Parts: sequence; structure tokens; C-alpha cells
Amino acid sequence: MSSAPAPRFDVLGIGNAIVDVLAPVEEAFITKHDMRKGSMTLIDAARAEAIYAAMPPAQETSGGSAANTCAAAAGLGARAAYFGRVADDQLGAVFRHDIAAGGVQFATPPLVGGAPTARSMILVTPDGERTMNTYLGACVAFTVAQVDEAIVADSAVTYLEGYLYDDAAAQAAFVHAAATAHKAGRKVALSLSDSFCVDRHRSAFRDLVRHHVDILFANDAEITALYECNDFADAVAHARAEVALVAITRGADGSLALRGAETVEIPAEPTRVVDTTGAGDVYAAGFLAALTAGRGLAACAKLGGIAAAEIIGHYGARLQRDLRGELAALG
Amino acid sequence: MSSAPAPRFDVLGIGNAIVDVLAPVEEAFITKHDMRKGSMTLIDAARAEAIYAAMPPAQETSGGSAANTCAAAAGLGARAAYFGRVADDQLGAVFRHDIAAGGVQFATPPLVGGAPTARSMILVTPDGERTMNTYLGACVAFTVAQVDEAIVADSAVTYLEGYLYDDAAAQAAFVHAAATAHKAGRKVALSLSDSFCVDRHRSAFRDLVRHHVDILFANDAEITALYECNDFADAVAHARAEVALVAITRGADGSLALRGAETVEIPAEPTRVVDTTGAGDVYAAGFLAALTAGRGLAACAKLGGIAAAEIIGHYGARLQRDLRGELAALG
Repeated sequence: MSSAPAPRFDVLGIGNAIVDVLAPVEEAFITKHDMRKGSMTLIDAARAEAIYAAMPPAQETSGGSAANTCAAAAGLGARAAYFGRVADDQLGAVFRHDIAAGGVQFATPPLVGGAPTARSMILVTPDGERTMNTYLGACVAFTVAQVDEAIVADSAVTYLEGYLYDDAAAQAAFVHAAATAHKAGRKVALSLSDSFCVDRHRSAFRDLVRHHVDILFANDAEITALYECNDFADAVAHARAEVALVAITRGADGSLALRGAETVEIPAEPTRVVDTTGAGDVYAAGFLAALTAGRGLAACAKLGGIAAAEIIGHYGARLQRDLRGELAALG
Repeated sequence: MSSAPAPRFDVLGIGNAIVDVLAPVEEAFITKHDMRKGSMTLIDAARAEAIYAAMPPAQETSGGSAANTCAAAAGLGARAAYFGRVADDQLGAVFRHDIAAGGVQFATPPLVGGAPTARSMILVTPDGERTMNTYLGACVAFTVAQVDEAIVADSAVTYLEGYLYDDAAAQAAFVHAAATAHKAGRKVALSLSDSFCVDRHRSAFRDLVRHHVDILFANDAEITALYECNDFADAVAHARAEVALVAITRGADGSLALRGAETVEIPAEPTRVVDTTGAGDVYAAGFLAALTAGRGLAACAKLGGIAAAEIIGHYGARLQRDLRGELAALG
């Protein structure tokens, strides 16, 4: 992807290291507990306790947006590394086990004696939509000190999740990682994560995208929020003018990839919608796994769609099927 | 079910309170790590670390044999309570949340400052068979002191899991609970749990069955192990002579229920086998939910089979579908 020496990693993810606590609920649960359906809301420890007490029996799996991307990228055959902060507690051990067992290098030391490992209570309604309530815990202890520059310099793409912008120290770490990547001749990718997150940090995101980002991932709500456009086509035009490569997911309408004058539209893979948790994360994984393997835009968007369809068909945001052969199968 | 006053609970389960750590593996994983496929093996902390380090990314759900039975019984509309010991750690909180959120009364205080909450690493092979490696942790601190006699006396059936026989203190608690139940005019049920567990404690189990048990749950391997019979029919005859009510599960061949001279055979419900974890536990739940509702043997075996089919169709040992209407639907 550049004239720098061949990198050791294809994708390095930086994000909030979170354990998902996932349960099916009826629509009424979302309304009763005053949640914003389909979005991610940050909650404090007291609210986390209250929601957990009210929610049905759950299953725990490792999550975190960029971590999901890294795990899926490794599951698709890419070489992946991850930075994120867990605590030295049982849920932290679960997170560490799962990402490492999936083949992702994860060496960020745990936080000792501070807040517990982050968890996100994810309520899945019968339509497959997920509503996330995240207690960040140890994640807020992620700072510039946790950015291992040697690994950034040795990764083809450093992938940053927009959710990090909810914390000032993580924001600084983020900009530092981007600068380090570019100095080493590498690329920087950003996922906008959530339209409400974009609303909270619009001007910072606009600066970041303009000055530091080579590859932008967003869905239609996020891209229109970023450019404050009512019209999707206007937002796309803005993004195309500012970023070298843009990939936009559109749910059941598939995805759109733009690079300079080039535009590729790929329909969604057929699937039964069980739980959309992680769909955007693993789309980015498929896209980047193909891109760093030297594939064209259509193959990137196609592999993203295949990975997203797998994740949507079951509970949880980590791949359950072996998709290692999918990239080669694209021809 | 007796002349005692109407009980507050239909089913009280007593067992090892365990969090399941569940992952799919190939057959080769079982062989390489020297495991006995299809059985439950007790492991120490060091072996638990080694297996966890080697196993793929996993999902965590609450488990424990009698706990699965109680959770499923509640999910089928029965009133359930549970005794078992977790630690005051994150996995203990997960276990407590899940069983309580499922509608089971669970008031056993956690172990403080001792071993961590038990976990069972469950490896599921492509044939749906599960191989369990259990680190008992805080479970071994379950003693007579954790047997709340008032709740035992107020439960129609006290249901004991055979796995408890791997610990001497739990064995004593078990006999005490059985005596308390009978003194109050209630029934005592036992699950044989695992044929190797039966082999380890055969004479103790034989005494227990003869002197303390009204309702016996077993599969074909366990019942032949208990009576050291090569012939299934011989083992069944032994059991019928010793226990008032016997229910035997036979995998794809359905189940068999015996009460005095009465015999009922019920075929298995059609289902796709994904993961057999908890199949016997939830069969017992369906059986007891129907029995304590005053239903006949055929309805008991049928509801057991319906619940088992639900659990076998997905990963994990807790019901995912709402089966509250199934008992009434049996007519």
C-alpha cells in the first residue's frame, strides 16, 4: 500500500476494549428504560447496575468496535493487532483470551487497581436492532502511553473507532497514533461509529477526517450527520472530496465505496437478521482484509458484505463460521 | 403431590453453581488435549489455565446442571429456587444475575475471600457432543450450612445433581437436604449426571437411591453404570424395583418413564443438533414442571423432550425461546 517496508500487520485496531452482555428483549423494554433505540449510550456505574438488574438472562462475549474489526480481520486471514485497555479482572481475562485466541496480537497491559473492565449491555429487539448501554470502566485509562509506536509503524492500516472521541485522553492517543502511522508511510482509517457520537464531536471529527484520515467508514446516518446534510448524495460528495477512500454501509441496501472518481455499489448478501451487533465493525474487517491483500474496491466491499451477513445471522459480534477461504473465493 | 401444606416452590435445585465457557472445536482438539469425549472431568486451576489458553474464542453463559434445570423449570412456568455457591467476583455476579433474571429464587450467600466462581470449559464438537472440563472453585465451599431448611420444606421436589458427590461436604449437605424434604412430606429427585461420576461413587449412589430418592433421572449409560448391567432392560428393572419414579433419556431414541408397573415411552422431538450441553438438565426441568402441575407420566416425558429439543438447537444450556405455553398446549 505504500513505499514503506512490508508491514508486520495488515490492520492495527485502537478502541474501547469491552465485554458485551447481550440479551433479547421486547420493544417495550427499550421504551420503559428510556433508551435511544439503535444507538450507543454511555452510562455510569449506577445506571449500569440498574439496567443489568432489569435485563433478562444474558450471554457474555468479547466486543468493542475496533476489537470486533480486528478479530474478524484475523478470521478472514489478515494479520491483526489491537490496542485497548481492560482491567486485571475476570472480564478483562475473558476479553484478552478471546482476542488472542482469535489470532490478534494484543499486548496492552491491563489497568491495575482502577475501574473494572468495560461492559456494554446490548439489548436486541425482535427486529434484530441492537441498543447499547456502555459503561467504559478501564477504557478511560487508555492514553498516549498505550500507543506502541513500533507496532503502529509496522501496520499497513491503523484503524480507529470514533467512540474513542468520547474521552479526551483517548482522543489525544488517537491523533498521536495517526501521526505515527503517517510518518511511517502507513494509512489511517476511521470508523464514525454512531451518528449521536458524530453529533457530540462533529467539529473534532471534521478536523480529524480532513487532516488525518485516508480511509473513512460510516453508515448513511453517520455520514449525513458528519456533513450536516439532509441529502445522502450531498454527504457522499463532501466525503469523496475530503478523503481518499470512503466506504459507506446502507443496511439492507448494501454498501458504497468511493476512491477519487471511482464508485462501486455492492448489494447486501442475503441473510436472516437475528442481531445486527457488530455488522459495521466486521464490514470494515472484510473491506480492510481485501484492501491490504491488494484487492480492488469491488472485492473490498464484497468481502465486507459477506462478513457482515455472517455476524447478523447470530447473536454476538464475533464470527462463528470460518471465513478464511472467502477472499480467495472472490477470485 | 403429598398431604403436606401447598408448597411455595415446585422445584428446588441444589448443585454446583458454574459459569460455562463454551466454544466449538474440531475432534482433534479433544484428542490432542487428552479429554474423555462426552464426559465431565474435574480439573484443577493449573489445568484450567492451560485448557483456556488453548481453546478458541468462547462465549460465557450461566450453567451448572441443577441450575440449568431450575432456570428451565422457571422458563416453563414452574416456581423454582436454587442453592449453590459462587464467589463474590464478576463471574459470580453473572451467575446470580442470570438465574434471578430467569425467575429463580437464589439466596445462597457468595463465598468471600476464597476460590473464584466455578467455570466449566465446554468444547462442542461438530456432532453437537459436549466435553466438559470443570474447575469447581467456590462450589467446594457448599456445605450443610448453605441448606436453608425452610425453603427445602417449602418445595414440592428437592432436585439434587449427582455431580455434588465429587465433594464430601456437598454429599453431606445433600443427605441433609433429602432428610429435611422427607420430614416435611416432600419428594427428593436425583440426577445421576455422568456415567464416570457414577463409577467414582457407585456404592454411595446405590445407598442414596435406595434410601433417599423418590424420582431418579438418568441416561442409558448412567443407569447401566449404576447397576453394573450390560443389558439396558436389566438396569431398568433394577431401577423400577428401587425407585418410585424413574425417567431415563436415550438421546435420539427419546425417553422412558417408569412408575410402579406403569411404563411410558416418548420419542425424541425432531431437532437439529447444534450443542447437547444441558439436554438432560432441561429434560428434567420439563418433566418436573409437568409433574408438579399434576400431569401424568406421558405429559411429563413429553414436556421434557420439548425442552431438551429447544436447548439442543443452539449453543448454551439455558432456554432461548419462551416455552411458557407448552405445558398448557399439551392439553
